[in-house]
Amino acid sequence: MRQSPQRRISLVAKDARHILHPWADLTSLGRQNSLVISEADGIRVTDSQGKTYLDGIGGMWCITVGYRHRDLIAAMRAQAETMVYFTPFGNVTSEPASQLASLLSELSPGDLNRVHFTTCGSTAVESAVRIAHYYFSCRGQRQKRHVLAQTNAYHGSTYLAASLSGKAVDRTHFHYEGGWVHHLESPAFDPDNSTVSAAERLDHLIAGMERAIARIGPEQIACFVAEPILASGGVLIPPPGYHQAALDLCRQHDILYISDEVVSAFGRLGHFFASETRFGIVPDLLVTAKGITSGYQPLGAVLLSDRIADALVEAADPAKPVLSNGFTYSGHPVACATAIANIAVMQREKICEHVRDVGPYFLERLRGLRNWSIVAAVRGDHLMACVECHVPGETGPTPRNQALARAVDAYCARSGLLVRPYENLCILSPALIIVKEEIDQIVAILDDALARAERDLWAGAF
Amino acid sequence: MRQSPQRRISLVAKDARHILHPWADLTSLGRQNSLVISEADGIRVTDSQGKTYLDGIGGMWCITVGYRHRDLIAAMRAQAETMVYFTPFGNVTSEPASQLASLLSELSPGDLNRVHFTTCGSTAVESAVRIAHYYFSCRGQRQKRHVLAQTNAYHGSTYLAASLSGKAVDRTHFHYEGGWVHHLESPAFDPDNSTVSAAERLDHLIAGMERAIARIGPEQIACFVAEPILASGGVLIPPPGYHQAALDLCRQHDILYISDEVVSAFGRLGHFFASETRFGIVPDLLVTAKGITSGYQPLGAVLLSDRIADALVEAADPAKPVLSNGFTYSGHPVACATAIANIAVMQREKICEHVRDVGPYFLERLRGLRNWSIVAAVRGDHLMACVECHVPGETGPTPRNQALARAVDAYCARSGLLVRPYENLCILSPALIIVKEEIDQIVAILDDALARAERDLWAGAF
Repeated sequence: MRQSPQRRISLVAKDARHILHPWADLTSLGRQNSLVISEADGIRVTDSQGKTYLDGIGGMWCITVGYRHRDLIAAMRAQAETMVYFTPFGNVTSEPASQLASLLSELSPGDLNRVHFTTCGSTAVESAVRIAHYYFSCRGQRQKRHVLAQTNAYHGSTYLAASLSGKAVDRTHFHYEGGWVHHLESPAFDPDNSTVSAAERLDHLIAGMERAIARIGPEQIACFVAEPILASGGVLIPPPGYHQAALDLCRQHDILYISDEVVSAFGRLGHFFASETRFGIVPDLLVTAKGITSGYQPLGAVLLSDRIADALVEAADPAKPVLSNGFTYSGHPVACATAIANIAVMQREKICEHVRDVGPYFLERLRGLRNWSIVAAVRGDHLMACVECHVPGETGPTPRNQALARAVDAYCARSGLLVRPYENLCILSPALIIVKEEIDQIVAILDDALARAERDLWAGAF
Repeated sequence: MRQSPQRRISLVAKDARHILHPWADLTSLGRQNSLVISEADGIRVTDSQGKTYLDGIGGMWCITVGYRHRDLIAAMRAQAETMVYFTPFGNVTSEPASQLASLLSELSPGDLNRVHFTTCGSTAVESAVRIAHYYFSCRGQRQKRHVLAQTNAYHGSTYLAASLSGKAVDRTHFHYEGGWVHHLESPAFDPDNSTVSAAERLDHLIAGMERAIARIGPEQIACFVAEPILASGGVLIPPPGYHQAALDLCRQHDILYISDEVVSAFGRLGHFFASETRFGIVPDLLVTAKGITSGYQPLGAVLLSDRIADALVEAADPAKPVLSNGFTYSGHPVACATAIANIAVMQREKICEHVRDVGPYFLERLRGLRNWSIVAAVRGDHLMACVECHVPGETGPTPRNQALARAVDAYCARSGLLVRPYENLCILSPALIIVKEEIDQIVAILDDALARAERDLWAGAF
């Protein structure tokens, strides 16, 4: 809905005066002329001036069944009217939490049959690592508390989750845990831009992991936290076999494997969960959020294997048997009811099958963009992709490369596509209901934007 | 709604098999016979067997306008239909986030005019401390990173928030930050049970804080995190003047004061915010959650003073001006729309005025229960209170005292009142719309439960 100019100006002014945005640009604080998104329907969003865009990023990796889905909205409303909230602590439950936990256990790989709900991805990652700590500590191995993570991974922005995240550009004036968090080399492997084979790259990565474990001491390491594909890091894809080899190494050294499926679960890679179906592993703990509610509601979850849950019970201290972790809004009934409706729609409308159908087409069409000299790489897997921009010869998120990506983004926005550049990357993760004609539209707009930005570059604009 | 026996059994079985509850009792995991709350209306909840209870705890300190309020549900639905979600990162905003930030700035004390939204209380506390870190670091004082907190305070259950929490009984097999988090003495002062005067207690507490600052070194301390009244710690109330004296000390040493108003804000103490109106301070940062949406939706927020926000802008690094903190669901549009409706209802129905009217009556009636020998203390402030149970002569959350409180809770539940014992405390924080007749009902049920538990005690039951 187009807002009156006065109302729009008032909304933008209030935003500028009163909001400190997540991931704000501090140099524009107080003066930011924010884009106000006022409507969302299907795979499109509309701003307060009435301009409609294809949402290329799916909210933020999270929209599955599209915006304004009547089933999800009806579920939210029905739950809010019936039982909007009550404490989930201790031995109190709600119908949606109980049903959703059962559903997640069915959909998830192997013996991941126990669910610890949280409020978002960061709190789920925090809870998973803390549960790994608890597990070893109650078994008498309190020194086993170090955590292995990956360079270029993203796991959230609480103190610990931000410390696990391994993107250099995200490290700013905050403090980070350096004593017991260790980053392994980024596992990225891009066959288009590699001088070594996938097998060589795999050997190199696993040897590096082995050396890190030996250096730190396996008796000190509680867990390894890994994204199946490093999403915010730039859709970085490890070489085939990486996850299995890393899991083998973890098993050898009694290190728990935590798979961070905040982005990869709920259909983005063509399955409800990617760990087993796509990467051949059943982790000890699995973290999810985002797509679980199609972004309609804040919700996160840690799935625990029966093996870990049983061990917690066995080692529980009878004098103090409480697992003192959890949040007021852990498994909020309205969020859980929305997630149940989301899963039902995905199953009924065969969304995972649809993603497996259109995903390869999406990637194939995007790869056609590699012909532009300002495209450094196109990477992706099903409906999770990125176009990396560069001034030929320059590598990484340099100021010029970022300016170039912003120009591509601006041209896209002008033509009705939001790709929201992340450094020098145009991220693409549309709602899973996208059809081939819409994919063609996205690619056509990107193609035109790249042409314009490349012309600007040669004209000396950057 | 009463569920069929089969459905109820199925819900309880799914819960037992598949949920690891927040703050779970691990010794009952897999066998827990959870209480399923199926309906909620006004100040009452109904379980899956059709039994209705007065909700003595207000969800969990969070219900303001009562369950099933049509305005809040209508706001949720309208927002979900219009614009359910889009990324809030960087310079993108939504109408409800912009409106709510402006409203919070109006309602909050002093120059707390800038809002950084999060997803819950823990993520808001994390963000506040991290912003304090950022503030000093970007001004060249990177070593100023230590945090002062309070024994018996509760701030959440992420790694850092749990480390700030100072309740010994909450410390289990998890790991906690000990290097740069320091706990001051619990500031509790109970005139009913004190051998010293309020003034003496205040002097003692402030002298202790002064010594701690000198010992750690003020040049190392970023912030002090404090609840106005320590809620989960057992409704512990500091002596008059404590907050002002602590703030003065912080100002002397350039230590930021973070007021954790997750429980105390949104009317529970009779005002939208308690820091200034009730305790005479304008903190540098203020954290809120829970009552902001009346518990209907997950939402947290950090309010920053203009002074801090301006300093962030001034010191921002032009080469890397991003405040790399924030969550996918920061200021979720549906949650913000719900909060706006909650505030509108509270203003229209004069809920704060109502709390200021019934609050003293609630406390006066509860204090009548001190006649029972098993009541160690009754403490509270307006609609935030607790009845501490003990076997006469025993102090604190001993196993016997906890068993006694559980018996009181069980008798209350049987008579239709949920107080959910926390250790040996019966916590009372009903929805803010409670009227005097309902207060009388709560007190009558508690009185009867205490009589029965006391009889059991003399009969040797504990």
